[in-house]
Amino acid sequence: MAAHTPKHIAIILFPGFQLLDVTGPLDTLNVLSRSTPLRLSILASTLGTLHHGNTDPVSTALPPTPSTPSTPPFAQSILPTHTFDTAPPDIDVLIVPGGPGTRTPATTRPILPFITRTYPSLTHLLSICTGSGIVAQTGVLDGRRATSNKRAFAWAKQQSEAVAWVARARWVVDGNVWTSSGVAAGMDMVYAWVEAVWGEGIAGELADGSEYERNRDSGNDRFAERWGATDG
Amino acid sequence: MAAHTPKHIAIILFPGFQLLDVTGPLDTLNVLSRSTPLRLSILASTLGTLHHGNTDPVSTALPPTPSTPSTPPFAQSILPTHTFDTAPPDIDVLIVPGGPGTRTPATTRPILPFITRTYPSLTHLLSICTGSGIVAQTGVLDGRRATSNKRAFAWAKQQSEAVAWVARARWVVDGNVWTSSGVAAGMDMVYAWVEAVWGEGIAGELADGSEYERNRDSGNDRFAERWGATDG
Repeated sequence: MAAHTPKHIAIILFPGFQLLDVTGPLDTLNVLSRSTPLRLSILASTLGTLHHGNTDPVSTALPPTPSTPSTPPFAQSILPTHTFDTAPPDIDVLIVPGGPGTRTPATTRPILPFITRTYPSLTHLLSICTGSGIVAQTGVLDGRRATSNKRAFAWAKQQSEAVAWVARARWVVDGNVWTSSGVAAGMDMVYAWVEAVWGEGIAGELADGSEYERNRDSGNDRFAERWGATDG
Repeated sequence: MAAHTPKHIAIILFPGFQLLDVTGPLDTLNVLSRSTPLRLSILASTLGTLHHGNTDPVSTALPPTPSTPSTPPFAQSILPTHTFDTAPPDIDVLIVPGGPGTRTPATTRPILPFITRTYPSLTHLLSICTGSGIVAQTGVLDGRRATSNKRAFAWAKQQSEAVAWVARARWVVDGNVWTSSGVAAGMDMVYAWVEAVWGEGIAGELADGSEYERNRDSGNDRFAERWGATDG
C-alpha cells in the first residue's frame, strides 16, 4: 500500500503521443473511478485553441512541418485540462506516456522540469513505452531499474547511462517508479499497479469487466528477443 | 479481400463512450496509417465548443445531470472532425464503439439514421462492445450472427430479437459486419480485420510493434461463462 491512497492522477500529453499508451491505462482508471474517488488532470504545454481543422489541442500526430499536411489525415486529439504552469499542486500520481513525439526535443523540453519538480511529492510515477526515455532525461531514474519500448530500447538507453535498463520485462517496479515496456504493456502494468494499491480483487474485477486477459508476470516478455533489446 | 481496399475510416463518438473501445482499434490503425494511405473521420452529433471545464467536445463521461458535477472528475474528451450531417460521403469503414452512453436513448437516437443510410456504401461495419446494441437497433444486424459485451449481453439481446447473438465469441464476422465482445476484445478484432484486409504479415508486424499479445481465435472467450452470457 502507498503512504496514502492516491486520489489525484495526472497524465502528460504532447504532440505525437502514442494513443494507447495514454488510453489503455486511463480506460482502466476511468472504470475504477466509478467506484473509487479519483480525479484526473490532463497536462500539456498549452491548452490549445479549437480551430477549424482540429489540429489543436494535443494530437497523436507530430506537429506539421513544411513537408506534411497541416491537418493530419489519420489522428486524434485529446483535450488537456491544465498546462504545466497551471497544474494543481496536489497530484499524487504522474503518468508519462511515450510515442513518436518523445524523440522531438522541442516537444519534451517543457515536460522535463515539470517531472523534476513534481516527483518529490508523488506517491507513484508511472511511465509507458518510450515515456521512460523522457523520465530518464530528468535524472529521476538514476540508479534505478527501468524498462522501455523494446523496438526503441537502444534509444531509451541513450537517454541515461545512470539507469539499469532491463530488457526482458513487461514492466519494472523500483521504489515508487513503475516503467512499462511498449504500448500495450502499459495495460498490464496499470492493472498490476491497481492491484498493488487497491488490491487483487478490484484489479481482477476491472480486467474481467473489460474482458482483458492480463499478463500478470512482469518478467514474461517475448518482445525483448523479438526486437533484439539488450540490458544497458 | 474487400471489394476495394478501405481508404477512409470513420468512427462514431457519443457522450459516455468507452475510451478503449475507440482507442484500442484506432491506435492500431494510427500505426498502420504511417505506411498505408488511410484517412480518419471522427463523427459526433455536434463538434462542441471548447469552453472552460472542457466538458465538450465528446467526453467519456455521461452528460451532467442535476445530481452530477458539470465537470466530471475523471474523464477525457476527444475532438470530432465532423457531425453526422457534415460527414464526408466516401466513408469505407464505420466503427461503432460502446460504453455507458449506449443506454441513453437521447444519445444514440442521432446515430441510428446515420448508420442506416451509410451502411449500404460501406466495405465494412465494425462494432466494439455494446456498440453492437446500437447497430442492432438499426436492423443492420437482422438475420446475422453477432456478439457484444458479455456483462451487458442480456441488454444487447433486448435490442433485437432478429439477431443471432453468439455468447461465446471474442468477435464474430458475418458478411461485412464485424462485432466484438467487450472493450479489450476490440483490439483482437481489429488485428483480425487488418489481417483480413491487408494480410497476416502486416497485422503481425503491427501487433509485435505495439507489444500486443493477440488472441487470434475468435471462439476463444472465457468471459461468456464469467459473466453468464447465453446465446439469444
